[in-house]
Amino acid sequence: MHEPFAAHSLPRYSRAMITLDLNLIAAHLEGLEETIIHRLIDRGQFAANPTAYRPGQSGFRGAGETSLFDMRLRYQEEMDAAFARYLVPEERPTHRDLPAPRREAQLPPTPLEIDDLDQVNVTPQIVAGYLGFLPRLCNLEPQDDGQYGSSVEHDVLAIQAIARRVHYGALYVAESKYRAAPDLFARHLAAGDRDEILQNITRPEVEERILMRVSQKVDYVQATINTAVRRRIDREVVLGFYRDLIIPLTKEGELRYLFNRRPTGSSGSRSGTP
Amino acid sequence: MHEPFAAHSLPRYSRAMITLDLNLIAAHLEGLEETIIHRLIDRGQFAANPTAYRPGQSGFRGAGETSLFDMRLRYQEEMDAAFARYLVPEERPTHRDLPAPRREAQLPPTPLEIDDLDQVNVTPQIVAGYLGFLPRLCNLEPQDDGQYGSSVEHDVLAIQAIARRVHYGALYVAESKYRAAPDLFARHLAAGDRDEILQNITRPEVEERILMRVSQKVDYVQATINTAVRRRIDREVVLGFYRDLIIPLTKEGELRYLFNRRPTGSSGSRSGTP
Repeated sequence: MHEPFAAHSLPRYSRAMITLDLNLIAAHLEGLEETIIHRLIDRGQFAANPTAYRPGQSGFRGAGETSLFDMRLRYQEEMDAAFARYLVPEERPTHRDLPAPRREAQLPPTPLEIDDLDQVNVTPQIVAGYLGFLPRLCNLEPQDDGQYGSSVEHDVLAIQAIARRVHYGALYVAESKYRAAPDLFARHLAAGDRDEILQNITRPEVEERILMRVSQKVDYVQATINTAVRRRIDREVVLGFYRDLIIPLTKEGELRYLFNRRPTGSSGSRSGTP
Repeated sequence: MHEPFAAHSLPRYSRAMITLDLNLIAAHLEGLEETIIHRLIDRGQFAANPTAYRPGQSGFRGAGETSLFDMRLRYQEEMDAAFARYLVPEERPTHRDLPAPRREAQLPPTPLEIDDLDQVNVTPQIVAGYLGFLPRLCNLEPQDDGQYGSSVEHDVLAIQAIARRVHYGALYVAESKYRAAPDLFARHLAAGDRDEILQNITRPEVEERILMRVSQKVDYVQATINTAVRRRIDREVVLGFYRDLIIPLTKEGELRYLFNRRPTGSSGSRSGTP
């Protein structure tokens, strides 16, 4: 027999993060930077450990061609799916065949105008880009310190922090910008003019400010480390994550959001459409 | 059919961390401080959310009296057990009935002289102490921001970082100190003189140095945060974690290790003893 759940026992999504005010969205994105930086730095304390990413080398019995990294990502996403993580719009997994939540979740109404959040899902691209960056983050000798379990554990935590930032930005920034100029976006969307839309969602001065701030944070966060016992991560590496991965994929997510956005006037579900 | 595993594909435990040189042990403990600080600060971005710790309020169907926090800790430890985390001496779980590892693990010989690592396991005490500290770490208003899932996710990560530090210290520091003065420790152990042993494993000047260093790090790590978007954690709170929880429980673990240490001369298994 199930216990009845009091209303206040259900997880609620913080309303502070649900906003279409571009300044508040930017502030929330800024607040996520430290967690990304912390997790990249923590991963960078281990060697690159290429074996952990090689198919068939997971050490799991009967795992076939799966790598240890793939295995960890799969386990983590299955656990998080049970905890209802992926009901939150900006939490997008790499796997599409995850189990249903085991936890009751009560989400507030969303101002987003999209039928399927996974139309915006760029987590597979984040994973690919992240793995491409790993050799720069972990340019230690030797390349293998045997700490495969810790390495992939930290990988998954870093990827989740990045994916949260990318999708939060993609969803809320895109909707906010659309609402600020609906006619302009509707015209370019109707024409399928990706370049024009990209230009309208790009603010080079904001990107510059983010990159400046992030590289400064990387140095401050590590100001007191003892380099005899802890490795210092170069600001350029974290900057590279932001410049070549996080910012472009946020814009890619914005484009996907806009191209899949419900047409104005059809707010809510499309159940009335034949 | 299983794939054969090449020797280099098996996880190996970093030899750098297996040492009985007290300076190297202290250096490794120092290197773990940033991860603990990062994780406490990240948890402190959320409200205390007492509902997440209340029995019967997990939101999981059929979970009975389990809290959401208990549920997360259980899921995390089951996942980590599958990945063979608890074969590593300093990784001690709260649960004793975890599934067997699904991953092949190859550990180097240990210099530790104990039959059952869980005789030293103080993770349940870490959890209790951590939960007691939470209201100080998250003294936000309102006390409930609805972010229960994120809160318990960060709790478990912080607890794991603390437990690794406590048990690494307990095991390797105790064995190192014992070997530096085996006759003295053997005498006090034979007499069951806990106070005398505690005095012999305590170095107040080292504790002072750790506390100074940790509180300095807490401020440096947060030097560049924008307090409009991110909450600053008081150095006193993290200091409290170290002073009242991490250091005393490391010493408690040392005591347990020493009282359960194999008598000199019986190195290896006790299979020869009737």
